[in-house]
Amino acid sequence: MTTSDIISSDTIVALATSPGANGAIAVIRLSGADAIAIANSVFKGKDLSKQETHTLHFGTIRDGDVIIDEVVISLFIGPNSYTKEHVVEISTHNSNYIIERILSLLIRHGARAAKAGEFTLRAYLNGGLDLSQAEAVADLIASENKASHEIAMNQLRGGISSELQRMREQLINFTALLELELDFGEEDVEFADRSEFLALIGTLKEHVTQLINSFEYGNAIKNGVPVAIIGKPNAGKSTLLNTLLNEERAIVSDIAGTTRDTIEEMMTIDGVTFRFIDTAGLRETLDTIEAIGVARAKEKVAAAKVLLYLYDSLNNTAEEVIEQVKAFHREGLITILVRNKIDLEGGYFANDFDYQIKAELIGGGYADEIVALSAKDPASVARLTSSLVERIRGLVSDNQQVITNIRHVEALKLAFQSMEDVDRGFQIGLSGDLLASHLRDALRHIGTITGQIDVDRDILGTIFGKFCIGK
Amino acid sequence: MTTSDIISSDTIVALATSPGANGAIAVIRLSGADAIAIANSVFKGKDLSKQETHTLHFGTIRDGDVIIDEVVISLFIGPNSYTKEHVVEISTHNSNYIIERILSLLIRHGARAAKAGEFTLRAYLNGGLDLSQAEAVADLIASENKASHEIAMNQLRGGISSELQRMREQLINFTALLELELDFGEEDVEFADRSEFLALIGTLKEHVTQLINSFEYGNAIKNGVPVAIIGKPNAGKSTLLNTLLNEERAIVSDIAGTTRDTIEEMMTIDGVTFRFIDTAGLRETLDTIEAIGVARAKEKVAAAKVLLYLYDSLNNTAEEVIEQVKAFHREGLITILVRNKIDLEGGYFANDFDYQIKAELIGGGYADEIVALSAKDPASVARLTSSLVERIRGLVSDNQQVITNIRHVEALKLAFQSMEDVDRGFQIGLSGDLLASHLRDALRHIGTITGQIDVDRDILGTIFGKFCIGK
Repeated sequence: MTTSDIISSDTIVALATSPGANGAIAVIRLSGADAIAIANSVFKGKDLSKQETHTLHFGTIRDGDVIIDEVVISLFIGPNSYTKEHVVEISTHNSNYIIERILSLLIRHGARAAKAGEFTLRAYLNGGLDLSQAEAVADLIASENKASHEIAMNQLRGGISSELQRMREQLINFTALLELELDFGEEDVEFADRSEFLALIGTLKEHVTQLINSFEYGNAIKNGVPVAIIGKPNAGKSTLLNTLLNEERAIVSDIAGTTRDTIEEMMTIDGVTFRFIDTAGLRETLDTIEAIGVARAKEKVAAAKVLLYLYDSLNNTAEEVIEQVKAFHREGLITILVRNKIDLEGGYFANDFDYQIKAELIGGGYADEIVALSAKDPASVARLTSSLVERIRGLVSDNQQVITNIRHVEALKLAFQSMEDVDRGFQIGLSGDLLASHLRDALRHIGTITGQIDVDRDILGTIFGKFCIGK
Repeated sequence: MTTSDIISSDTIVALATSPGANGAIAVIRLSGADAIAIANSVFKGKDLSKQETHTLHFGTIRDGDVIIDEVVISLFIGPNSYTKEHVVEISTHNSNYIIERILSLLIRHGARAAKAGEFTLRAYLNGGLDLSQAEAVADLIASENKASHEIAMNQLRGGISSELQRMREQLINFTALLELELDFGEEDVEFADRSEFLALIGTLKEHVTQLINSFEYGNAIKNGVPVAIIGKPNAGKSTLLNTLLNEERAIVSDIAGTTRDTIEEMMTIDGVTFRFIDTAGLRETLDTIEAIGVARAKEKVAAAKVLLYLYDSLNNTAEEVIEQVKAFHREGLITILVRNKIDLEGGYFANDFDYQIKAELIGGGYADEIVALSAKDPASVARLTSSLVERIRGLVSDNQQVITNIRHVEALKLAFQSMEDVDRGFQIGLSGDLLASHLRDALRHIGTITGQIDVDRDILGTIFGKFCIGK
């Protein structure tokens, strides 16, 4: 997408619904100053230029005398539309032949084929959506589970925008006071209360840190939470997976992984999607207790957010469990010890085996909890799944805004650095104009998220280029 | 589809657009007495029950407090809708997650998942479309080229219906006169002029025959015109096909044939789709001039509507060409003799070779024309393609209605038989009441096409079961 595309206001057209043979209707969308005039020139039924906004009109699309289709027109008169321009949606019969003929007919009458994301780009440029809301539209369309849907919908509804707006307002107020002092420079007045100001910067830094940290959760939710299941060959990994798959609440799909030899099993449990990574490969790794096997397993665990370590007192010694879990340990890795086969052993015993593991691994901070279960028994496996879901949800607090977009995280990190500069500036008695400059940097970085300040055209091109055509 | 489905008037719901990830929006359609009430119970923005028909409303779909999506509602208040019932269309973001949640939400609020074709079935049952128009909807969606689109659109616009209606009216008038005579039976009056009547039946029979005959064309257009290219191995079949494929006007696709070992090359030329059947296999058949080779080729030609026989005076003797074309001859097979390699031989000569072939094959009625060309030269091949297209279009006259539906042909054949019974009845002096009975049979058969008379519930189930869901 080039700059000229971004600033152009010509009338664009695209198929807005999915192409494919299994639908009854398709919708072709026009947006721009001439949208109504162009539609009018091929539509017979009513004079669209004389109709009110938000009305529907039955008629025919004609190429000269030839009727291409009987259609229903949705009329949105700008600025009362998604793009804030005139928008006409043509609901046609879902035939590729008809769609292609109507698209080429509209292009012949002055419309231009829309580029990916161009409708939403216009909605942003015309003030219908801010940039983070526009990005949420793509996330919403891509959302495949409850949690990612919730986050995208919150972002579309302006949840993050309004939070950032509050932060900006506080910063703007303070920057204004600082700059006022500069005007009265020689009189050495202090309008801005320094201690109050330091407290504010501290709060804002904390807030920005929370948002940055939420990205780990947001990203996991958006792309699925990667889970590694580790255990010796007869630890019950397959049984556990099968029980998970058979649970009604789990929605399963096999997807090819990023490399040709990995297979991921995706499962949505209570609205959170989990990716069980390369379980086939892992099944063998701990078979050979040699260094190479453990190294391979470690690689898999390195890519995971959650480690489920399966063991039982029949096949494992406590020492072995302790040694392996410690070997896999990593800061931020959610580690759940799954003590399997309680049906065979009669439960989770308060014996030496258990005490030792609990003391060393839970006590030592290497694992988060022990779930005792029988992998064959759905009711006991349900305890594991609710723990999994709770621990993922627990990554953020209830009303916490969640960042899912790498661009937003990068902007927040830059804003954080500018705030650090302000903070340090105070410590070393930096002059008011330099403090104000750092504050303006922080404001600018936050502003790029919602696009309130000018965003580089190339960045806009990248953002909207990821959209599908017709959106 | 059972009888209870057909007579039910509950509110149905389905995704009306194609499923798939590449669209920006999706449309969910509700139809029925409670469509507006059900939509209203999950929509927040405006009270839909207080809005006018043919209006658009922006708002949110909510499941309790949870916002599922921001949507635009299209409101059609019955009978001003496709189905003549209340229709609500919900334009959502195109996410499977969102679509599934909204569908299940609407079902929870009292809608029922629609069956294939159920919206159009309701349009028919409620008098919005007659049966042949309803069938045209499916044909229109399936139309892939100009010719099939034209026929389906004409049928949807009531072209065939109004033609059949004219026939019915003429028959009804005459039947009424005949039946009036029966009431005055003892007075021996004749209101209906016998000679005028015989002339009418004759005209109608001719008309019905035309319609029946148009099916061969209609079916070919709908499914592609099967063409067999036959010729010795170096006759230039591949060259001809390649030149055809490279023509700008030709839209080509390879499709798997009905049996696993046949490949068809589909090509749309000037709006008519041709299926070059099993050309790979045919390439070898005439190689061995043995009986088995010819038998195989004959089999392929038997499935074709058009035979292109490629030959030239360098590789063929006139006797050979004459013998083979005669062997392939069949009533109704369009046979074009393609005299190839005129670039090598310097043109189509008026020599013995040509005279002999022309006299025997064109003169004898075994072939329709000779096209002389160089298969390598697009300009000369264009003469063949225009001849092909013209001959296919020539199968029906310009304003002739075209039947594409086997159900319609069967009904017309039954109507024709009843008309024959009437005709014969006159010859043998059949009584007025028996003549009237045959006339009513003819009327009934014609009426089943548009569904003006009761159509068997099972037949309706079969017709609409072929539709996609959401239509």
